[in-house]
Amino acid sequence: MPERRPFDVLSIGLNNTVIVGMKGGYEFRGVMVAYDIHMNIALEKAEQLINGEVKRGVGTILLRGDAVTYISPA
Amino acid sequence: MPERRPFDVLSIGLNNTVIVGMKGGYEFRGVMVAYDIHMNIALEKAEQLINGEVKRGVGTILLRGDAVTYISPA
Amino acid sequence: MPERRPFDVLSIGLNNTVIVGMKGGYEFRGVMVAYDIHMNIALEKAEQLINGEVKRGVGTILLRGDAVTYISPA
Amino acid sequence: MPERRPFDVLSIGLNNTVIVGMKGGYEFRGVMVAYDIHMNIALEKAEQLINGEVKRGVGTILLRGDAVTYISPA
Amino acid sequence: MPERRPFDVLSIGLNNTVIVGMKGGYEFRGVMVAYDIHMNIALEKAEQLINGEVKRGVGTILLRGDAVTYISPA
Amino acid sequence: MPERRPFDVLSIGLNNTVIVGMKGGYEFRGVMVAYDIHMNIALEKAEQLINGEVKRGVGTILLRGDAVTYISPA
Amino acid sequence: MPERRPFDVLSIGLNNTVIVGMKGGYEFRGVMVAYDIHMNIALEKAEQLINGEVKRGVGTILLRGDAVTYISPA
Repeated sequence: MPERRPFDVLSIGLNNTVIVGMKGGYEFRGVMVAYDIHMNIALEKAEQLINGEVKRGVGTILLRGDAVTYISPA
Repeated sequence: MPERRPFDVLSIGLNNTVIVGMKGGYEFRGVMVAYDIHMNIALEKAEQLINGEVKRGVGTILLRGDAVTYISPA
Repeated sequence: MPERRPFDVLSIGLNNTVIVGMKGGYEFRGVMVAYDIHMNIALEKAEQLINGEVKRGVGTILLRGDAVTYISPA
Repeated sequence: MPERRPFDVLSIGLNNTVIVGMKGGYEFRGVMVAYDIHMNIALEKAEQLINGEVKRGVGTILLRGDAVTYISPA
Repeated sequence: MPERRPFDVLSIGLNNTVIVGMKGGYEFRGVMVAYDIHMNIALEKAEQLINGEVKRGVGTILLRGDAVTYISPA
Repeated sequence: MPERRPFDVLSIGLNNTVIVGMKGGYEFRGVMVAYDIHMNIALEKAEQLINGEVKRGVGTILLRGDAVTYISPA
Repeated sequence: MPERRPFDVLSIGLNNTVIVGMKGGYEFRGVMVAYDIHMNIALEKAEQLINGEVKRGVGTILLRGDAVTYISPA
């Protein structure tokens, strides 16, 4: 096993803007204020993106871990 | 692990209007009166939304956790 | 955790007419005579709905919990 | 929990003709000669139905529980 | 629970020709030489069927249980 | 249970060319150099096939077990 | 069981450029800096590929294991 762990990406992203990919192909972008070991993620000041374009603002949102496919610091 | 937990979004949303995204792409909006650790969610005064438009009223409804993708206080 | 539990919707719906949403997008409407913790549900006098229209009567039917997405008292 | 259990539908259907809905939208109709707690189901004198029309006879068949969506005595 | 078990269909089919339905809608037909409790299945002299027509011969093949939807002695 | 086990197909295929079917309908063909009980599979000199035609060479590749649908010695 | 294990591909790929296939059909290419037993993978200097063409750069990204289908050293 490598010294670095995949979840380090989450601790780096905490309180910063991240993009979260969802099953179904769309994304949410917002400030990640919480996560857990299931990859459940809470965002604030979030907006939903379709094909990289902002579709709508959603404010605070809880994303269910098993619907998440990737998380990337913006 | 961060101090805040993703499920805090649920405790904030309790007894308030929330929007719940479902696998399949549609949403329900209603007053969240109950939830559990599986993200099973009970709404009252709920309506089903397709592409953000109200499709129909459904009153009280139980949403199965593994069909839920996100929850956002309205 | 809130005082009310999502499964309260099921106990309220027992022996009453409910609408059950299924993965795949169709629904069944009937009198719910039994359910369990997996959300397996037994209906009587049931009919299958597609886009809210009655497609056919099915009488007694067992719905497998992991194919269920929502349950709403009619 | 209610007194009646969803699996009662299976014990009623045993040795009788049932219709079984499958993920993917098609159905099998036949005499249910065995089932288990995973909803694995064995039919005899079975035929596959598409949109309610008989597509072909299949004789004896084992249906895998996690591909089953509903079971209804015919 | 009934006296007969669904897996009896597998013991009957052993060393005989069976048709195996797969998620995605296609089938394999061949001589079933092994199976296990996960419904992993090994076929010999197998061929892949699409809409009931032989698409190609594949010889020996291991089918992963969770991709299997049904098994029927041919 | 039969004497032969489905995983025997994997031990036969080891260090030989196999075709691996993947959820989504495409395949990989290559020399299987490792596998485990989850059906995670490592191939060398692999190429991706779409509709039986070589799409591209990929060299060494790890295939995740739960995305695998079948394995057949070529 | 063979002497070599599928996860050896991951230890070989560590700190090197890999291509990761995702459910939904797209890929990410980047330097793999971490992985774990769930096949959660962290990439740096990553870009998303669609049909083998670069769609966009994404920098650092965490890929959820159960959305991963394959990993190949580039």
